[in-house]
Amino acid sequence: MSLDGRYDADNIFAKIVRGEIPSVKVFEDDKVLAFMDVFPQSRGHALVISKVSQARNILEVETDVLADLGAATQKLTRAVVAALKPDGVVVTQFNGAPAGQTIFHLHFHVIPRYEGQDLGRHGEGGMADVEELKALAAKISAAL
Amino acid sequence: MSLDGRYDADNIFAKIVRGEIPSVKVFEDDKVLAFMDVFPQSRGHALVISKVSQARNILEVETDVLADLGAATQKLTRAVVAALKPDGVVVTQFNGAPAGQTIFHLHFHVIPRYEGQDLGRHGEGGMADVEELKALAAKISAAL
Repeated sequence: MSLDGRYDADNIFAKIVRGEIPSVKVFEDDKVLAFMDVFPQSRGHALVISKVSQARNILEVETDVLADLGAATQKLTRAVVAALKPDGVVVTQFNGAPAGQTIFHLHFHVIPRYEGQDLGRHGEGGMADVEELKALAAKISAAL
Repeated sequence: MSLDGRYDADNIFAKIVRGEIPSVKVFEDDKVLAFMDVFPQSRGHALVISKVSQARNILEVETDVLADLGAATQKLTRAVVAALKPDGVVVTQFNGAPAGQTIFHLHFHVIPRYEGQDLGRHGEGGMADVEELKALAAKISAAL
């Protein structure tokens, strides 16, 4: 079953946490990082990850880390709503490839929804323009 | 914006919490309730709600309630995986009607995914057979 296996310390999010590859950050502290998804499904699609846990998914994560991720996801969602005024927001989290997970470091998606706009498929539109993501991140972090 | 408005104390989940309408329960304590979705998108689709909060969505919920809901969602997800052996699991939470929310009492979906099976649309297959849901709930709660 795809939920079996081990944490790969060279996954992309682990590299982002270590600063080995760049990300467009919204906020961070010692425990969590919120940053823009480079394959956004809608305008303002952002992610929350732990900087301290090697959990691949919700099955594996430590209780205190999960509480920190929940609080950070709420903080990000509130800021996204304040900054971008979407009509709704989906918060979602995938466990295992058959559920849509592509990076095996636990992460929560915060995906704004806008009336009359369908969601893009992840990666379908290609990579987002980094300058656009930086402008969105600045707008969201200003609303924190 | 649909994220505005007020909590309606007569929503279906509030009635379930008060015992005014039945539900097929997986587990509960003083704070949280896990029960089967009567319009399942896959076999074993279950929900987690707070019994003490009147939050409609993640924007409104109290920090401690969110932590309790996160822990209960993890507990439910682990039991669903142990009991039903899906290939993956989606955890998701909708805020506002344009995001797919239909009942305005904060809830987390735990949706098992099985290889080669697409998700049903919520409500599309009609209401589930209650006896089948009871058998699934018994199997999941036995794996707690």
